[in-house]
Amino acid sequence: MTQRLSDDNCIFCRIESGVLDAEVVYQDDVCFAIRDINPAAPVHLLVIPRKHFTYLADLTIFDHTMLGSMFEAAVEAASAAGIDDTGYRLVINQGNDAGQQVAHLHLHVLGGERLGGMR
Amino acid sequence: MTQRLSDDNCIFCRIESGVLDAEVVYQDDVCFAIRDINPAAPVHLLVIPRKHFTYLADLTIFDHTMLGSMFEAAVEAASAAGIDDTGYRLVINQGNDAGQQVAHLHLHVLGGERLGGMR
Repeated sequence: MTQRLSDDNCIFCRIESGVLDAEVVYQDDVCFAIRDINPAAPVHLLVIPRKHFTYLADLTIFDHTMLGSMFEAAVEAASAAGIDDTGYRLVINQGNDAGQQVAHLHLHVLGGERLGGMR
Repeated sequence: MTQRLSDDNCIFCRIESGVLDAEVVYQDDVCFAIRDINPAAPVHLLVIPRKHFTYLADLTIFDHTMLGSMFEAAVEAASAAGIDDTGYRLVINQGNDAGQQVAHLHLHVLGGERLGGMR
C-alpha cells in the first residue's frame, strides 16, 4: 500500500508540512510547485500533490479531480514562468525504467528553450 | 479558440470518427489509445481524448475529470502492454519548444526499456 495522506520519510511531504524549507513558486489547496534542484532545462518546475501517492496506479476515480488540478497548476506555473507562448513539456515518471527519483507522485514542467526527444 | 468537439483536419479526430484507420489498443468513453507510428521506445502509446483540444490551457475545471480519465487510460494501457512493473514515462508536449507534432492534446506513454533524460 503506497497511498498515505503523508509520509514522514518523504522529502516532498516534509516540504509540504514545512519541516523542510523550499521556495514554493505556486500553491493551491491540492498541490504546490517548486523548482527542481537539478534542473534539466532553463525552466524546470515540479508540481506536487499535497497528498502522498507514489504511483498513478494507486489513484481511484475520486482522485481524478486532483490530477486535473495538478495540470491546471502546471499551466499556471508555466504561464508565471513565461513559457506559455514558447511551449513546455509535462512529464510524469513512474518506476525504475523512467527513473522516478522521489516516491511521491510529481509532474515535471520543462521549458525555456527548444527541448529534444522525450528520453 | 482552439477548442472544438471535433476538427475534420485533425488526424486524431479522423481516427476517432473512423475516417482514418488505426489499431486502437485501448478505448473508453473519454479517450482511446494507439501506437505511435514513429516509436521512441519499445512501447510508445498515445492516449488521445475524443474531444478536440490543442492545449491544456484551453481546458476548464469541467474537463478535469477528462484528464483523470486520460491518466487512468494510460495506466490501463501500460498494464496491458506489460510495462506496469518496470515503469513508464508519461509526456504531454505543449507548443513549439516541446515539439508538439499534432495540434490535438495527447499523452505519450513510453516504456519497455530503461529511458534516459526527459529531453
